[in-house]
Amino acid sequence: MNFTSDNWAGVHPAITENLARHASGMAAAYGTSDLDRRIERRFCEIFEREVAVFFVGTGTAANSLALASVNRPGGVVLCHREAHMVKDECGAPEYFTGGARLQTVDGAAGKMDPRNLIRELKHFRPDFIHAGQAMAVSLTQATEVGTIYQPHEIAALSDICRDRGLPLHMDGARFANALVSLGTSPAEMAWKQGVDIVSFGGTKNGCWCAEALVFFDPESAKDLPYIRKRAAQLFSKTRFIAAQFEAYLDNGLWLDLAAHANRMAARLADAIRGGANVRLAWEVQANEVFAIIPATTVEEWRAKGVRFHPWPVPGDLVEQVAENEIIARLVTSFATTEDEVSDFIKLLEKPLQ
Amino acid sequence: MNFTSDNWAGVHPAITENLARHASGMAAAYGTSDLDRRIERRFCEIFEREVAVFFVGTGTAANSLALASVNRPGGVVLCHREAHMVKDECGAPEYFTGGARLQTVDGAAGKMDPRNLIRELKHFRPDFIHAGQAMAVSLTQATEVGTIYQPHEIAALSDICRDRGLPLHMDGARFANALVSLGTSPAEMAWKQGVDIVSFGGTKNGCWCAEALVFFDPESAKDLPYIRKRAAQLFSKTRFIAAQFEAYLDNGLWLDLAAHANRMAARLADAIRGGANVRLAWEVQANEVFAIIPATTVEEWRAKGVRFHPWPVPGDLVEQVAENEIIARLVTSFATTEDEVSDFIKLLEKPLQ
Amino acid sequence: MNFTSDNWAGVHPAITENLARHASGMAAAYGTSDLDRRIERRFCEIFEREVAVFFVGTGTAANSLALASVNRPGGVVLCHREAHMVKDECGAPEYFTGGARLQTVDGAAGKMDPRNLIRELKHFRPDFIHAGQAMAVSLTQATEVGTIYQPHEIAALSDICRDRGLPLHMDGARFANALVSLGTSPAEMAWKQGVDIVSFGGTKNGCWCAEALVFFDPESAKDLPYIRKRAAQLFSKTRFIAAQFEAYLDNGLWLDLAAHANRMAARLADAIRGGANVRLAWEVQANEVFAIIPATTVEEWRAKGVRFHPWPVPGDLVEQVAENEIIARLVTSFATTEDEVSDFIKLLEKPLQ
Amino acid sequence: MNFTSDNWAGVHPAITENLARHASGMAAAYGTSDLDRRIERRFCEIFEREVAVFFVGTGTAANSLALASVNRPGGVVLCHREAHMVKDECGAPEYFTGGARLQTVDGAAGKMDPRNLIRELKHFRPDFIHAGQAMAVSLTQATEVGTIYQPHEIAALSDICRDRGLPLHMDGARFANALVSLGTSPAEMAWKQGVDIVSFGGTKNGCWCAEALVFFDPESAKDLPYIRKRAAQLFSKTRFIAAQFEAYLDNGLWLDLAAHANRMAARLADAIRGGANVRLAWEVQANEVFAIIPATTVEEWRAKGVRFHPWPVPGDLVEQVAENEIIARLVTSFATTEDEVSDFIKLLEKPLQ
Repeated sequence: MNFTSDNWAGVHPAITENLARHASGMAAAYGTSDLDRRIERRFCEIFEREVAVFFVGTGTAANSLALASVNRPGGVVLCHREAHMVKDECGAPEYFTGGARLQTVDGAAGKMDPRNLIRELKHFRPDFIHAGQAMAVSLTQATEVGTIYQPHEIAALSDICRDRGLPLHMDGARFANALVSLGTSPAEMAWKQGVDIVSFGGTKNGCWCAEALVFFDPESAKDLPYIRKRAAQLFSKTRFIAAQFEAYLDNGLWLDLAAHANRMAARLADAIRGGANVRLAWEVQANEVFAIIPATTVEEWRAKGVRFHPWPVPGDLVEQVAENEIIARLVTSFATTEDEVSDFIKLLEKPLQ
Repeated sequence: MNFTSDNWAGVHPAITENLARHASGMAAAYGTSDLDRRIERRFCEIFEREVAVFFVGTGTAANSLALASVNRPGGVVLCHREAHMVKDECGAPEYFTGGARLQTVDGAAGKMDPRNLIRELKHFRPDFIHAGQAMAVSLTQATEVGTIYQPHEIAALSDICRDRGLPLHMDGARFANALVSLGTSPAEMAWKQGVDIVSFGGTKNGCWCAEALVFFDPESAKDLPYIRKRAAQLFSKTRFIAAQFEAYLDNGLWLDLAAHANRMAARLADAIRGGANVRLAWEVQANEVFAIIPATTVEEWRAKGVRFHPWPVPGDLVEQVAENEIIARLVTSFATTEDEVSDFIKLLEKPLQ
Repeated sequence: MNFTSDNWAGVHPAITENLARHASGMAAAYGTSDLDRRIERRFCEIFEREVAVFFVGTGTAANSLALASVNRPGGVVLCHREAHMVKDECGAPEYFTGGARLQTVDGAAGKMDPRNLIRELKHFRPDFIHAGQAMAVSLTQATEVGTIYQPHEIAALSDICRDRGLPLHMDGARFANALVSLGTSPAEMAWKQGVDIVSFGGTKNGCWCAEALVFFDPESAKDLPYIRKRAAQLFSKTRFIAAQFEAYLDNGLWLDLAAHANRMAARLADAIRGGANVRLAWEVQANEVFAIIPATTVEEWRAKGVRFHPWPVPGDLVEQVAENEIIARLVTSFATTEDEVSDFIKLLEKPLQ
Repeated sequence: MNFTSDNWAGVHPAITENLARHASGMAAAYGTSDLDRRIERRFCEIFEREVAVFFVGTGTAANSLALASVNRPGGVVLCHREAHMVKDECGAPEYFTGGARLQTVDGAAGKMDPRNLIRELKHFRPDFIHAGQAMAVSLTQATEVGTIYQPHEIAALSDICRDRGLPLHMDGARFANALVSLGTSPAEMAWKQGVDIVSFGGTKNGCWCAEALVFFDPESAKDLPYIRKRAAQLFSKTRFIAAQFEAYLDNGLWLDLAAHANRMAARLADAIRGGANVRLAWEVQANEVFAIIPATTVEEWRAKGVRFHPWPVPGDLVEQVAENEIIARLVTSFATTEDEVSDFIKLLEKPLQ
């Protein structure tokens, strides 16, 4: 019962096999092989338009380079208080941008509230250089707390961006999980709602190391080859990232894997909803389940083989989580088995204390 | 006959198989799995001492983070005029250090001349802050032009560093090729000659993406976990870099692969030495062959299926290369076949014109 | 009645005269003249210990270089939500540190609450590199809202720093105003309470451009000459900063100027306390007065020649400031006249509406 | 006889007086006062066109911010091997650009040879991202070795820039000295020859701290307010830089001061041309004289009260300077007296040994 993280899972067999299939032979290095080119085209098909695609090694790299590509002097990016780039990237976005600031925006359920975004943006007026200048807005889909922005919610944020000439970035480390949850198309979830750049993650959903930075306006990405290379993210044998994506995107594998992970999370959520002394911190819409549980349960669960991370109680839940409670994060993945979930559900049948 | 680069080669089957072997199962992310730990220990064995090891994704990352870890305000790193970090990393070392400078040092055969190093270092006197301060010296082993520093040559450079309190870094993108060429041990080629940090490359010698940053003074690397994470080089599933190194280092595979590549280069070199209208630009000591050939030959070779990169004529060879000649770089790898080499040698039997 | 800012004032005559007195003659450039050296010694006297002093051109430079000198990879500095470096330096601290983050800490009256500081510091645990690492704490004395940390309040913060090995920086853009308000000595207000570095401001108190970065542990500043020069803050004719400080520090001029400014603020505060429909937002302890006034008054005051800046209502005052009210910031300086203050007080005698 | 540097001189009385004249009164801070605006207009008049002007504190700041404003990812600026930004700015240009590289270009007499510039630029091809991308060319006028680019020589460099879409920057720390030497107009020496940005220095020619960054295409400077503020170069009382420039530019004072300095240098040069065992290293065209003298003379001159800096022998003069000789740099300024020069000339009348 290992629900620690979807990045604790390994690699899906179809992806491993494809790596092996392409292992021999000579091919152009540094992103110029036929395979690289073919998979770049594949992204155009998936997004139903011309896109510029850049393969990189980590989600942190994708996010940081996206911001570096749109940064301005004194630049400030606005994102949710709980965003991965704020909480978990060790300052990489600031580092790669040469010192841009992340200005956090509050909002329930891990989602920026458009009114709060508007309010925060007011600090950055063209006639007041001392505050710096807003340079981008970044949302995370699925969010850090396992919720999903509805398409109209994304559009509401992009409208605000459009009015102010700001690009909208989507951290899609769990893009596939959000997509299958919404039952929509990549185009509908991204550029048709006004998203300009996506960090498209494969690693958390069955690849070993496959992230793509996708620009819907290829012209805006004309410096990206330099930005990526300068950031040590241009792999010489980048075709093996392409090979992962080839298998990942083939025949909808990526959607199947995400759908499985989401289904496992939904089963966990159902059980928690019905459990005694346990409840959900947020609605479960993707592959992450946050359960408010008695603190005493932690050791008990661990003793029974449940692995998970406790999660810091964010400001807006402080009132709802009692002193003797904690939030447990349970993450499912393509590799989570029905049996693991069933075992965990059995545990819940005995009331927590 | 593809001699373009060793990073055009694919992945050795043993490494592919090991990736597959570890593909399933859950394991701790971010460099903390058992496999990561075990392979870190493996590096200690190989270098015959305690070392601190950090897996990263590219050689450029390894070099840049090495320098970032020792940088000082106004910092200057001294390296050969032809060093990869000068010519081929798109400013990554400067970027990751927040603006350190690469000061080039001349020397024959791609190797820094100790006298020139001493002379350049004189510009950085403690009482003259305007010039900045020297912060490291970096050598490349094997060099960019396929030559090798003899152990005593490394020691001569490290003596200069020691006197001035400067760390000595080795860019070992082709560490294995140098090692088998010298027939010595990793310890003898590195820390026993005073090297402090090695960028230990696996990618060019049969891995798909496996580079390790090795610190011989683990204490000096105490901030590296932050430096690596901030630089987006901490892979979540880093165990798959470890898995590559496991196979790579097992049973001397890495040495066998490098020995094969070097042997193929030696055969090419012999043929060029014996050819008409063709000669070697530098002694061939590893897996790179630089041939001075008539410019008219380029198209002819290409027509016959020889693939290679022309190489810019460096300052110290300008006198030796005629107007109507160019330098051709031929790189061999673990994947180069005896047949390819034989075919090329046959080509040479007809005098070039 | 110009209460816009103390940096709208000019230069005190004694300082102008001293600039003129030193204008002729040749003297060593780049901070090495006799005058520079003498004024550096003067700082040692004023702080009653050996200090390392570096003259720079702006307060933003002093703050940013202080942080650059103590930064660490993934570094985070903790400071009050309203700190100048957060609100008014256009990202300079992030820029000069190559991407450190400013993590804000709440607290009433512009002062960090030690409990909040402790809570925020918990996010930066040695075993969780993803969050980055705390690298310094910075307080502002006097604060942005015109209040003063009592010595024991500074000590409470420095105790927290000491326990965690963090340096404590004081942004002393209004150091003199705080000092005379407390009626204590520079040593007592700074290093005796555990402060490690002070940005010692002269510009807002009668100089034209004179800021000093003071390190109480000179050893910790050994790289500062490079940090300052690399940041373009080593003036060639730095002796003219020294000349300003010479006059400023002579015969207690600096304290007299600050005392005057504080007294003018106290008179304004008294009048506001006694006024109708107007009240103080915070206690007035230095040379800044924040008055909550009807929004309709703004134009009226302006028509009568009162100049000031409206101030954004911070989160903790939102409940206390009505929809139809605003906060007006009135700043006094060495140049504020008794008449200006009397004129303003007369205005207040008629109730605001 | 102090010929150490023009930045050892003090401040011209007319400038000191103007500082005093503006010392009292309140004025808008941060570059927005009437005086600031008026002097900005003055620069438009002087350059005979609309320009965008930004006052900063040091020449290093002006150069570094100019480059920061035009930098690109993996950016490389080309400048002469002896340029101030290479030799004397402690890495500030690299730091402020977040890691751009300075690629040096050779050329006689401190001036880039256009053929060498073309050759160096060839390394930066659009199809080879590994080398980075050229982003600007910077020339120094007058040069570091006291020579002057003729207008047609500037035009030859700007033609090269134009063909490649590169901005041309002029480090004009000694702009006035060059200008009076050429007897031309600011427009003719700058934008009419294709210069895009000038670091316009006042400090070395009689100001205490007055440098202006001048953009001939104001549109290209639209982010400069943020770039300057973020770099801690927006002085609150910037009007005192404006006040210096007001006096400096009034009635041609700046040209008179430069003409005087140049004349003093010409007298020194004449004497050296006629002296025994002493000769000029480069033609003297501005206010710097480089004399090749016997090494034994150094102590003798010092004993007689001559102050100067020895100058490192650059590569292209190595053949011409004997082992027992050194290069002495003698700098004149507005403050150099006829008597000092006469005294020095008398010294020369006795042959050096």
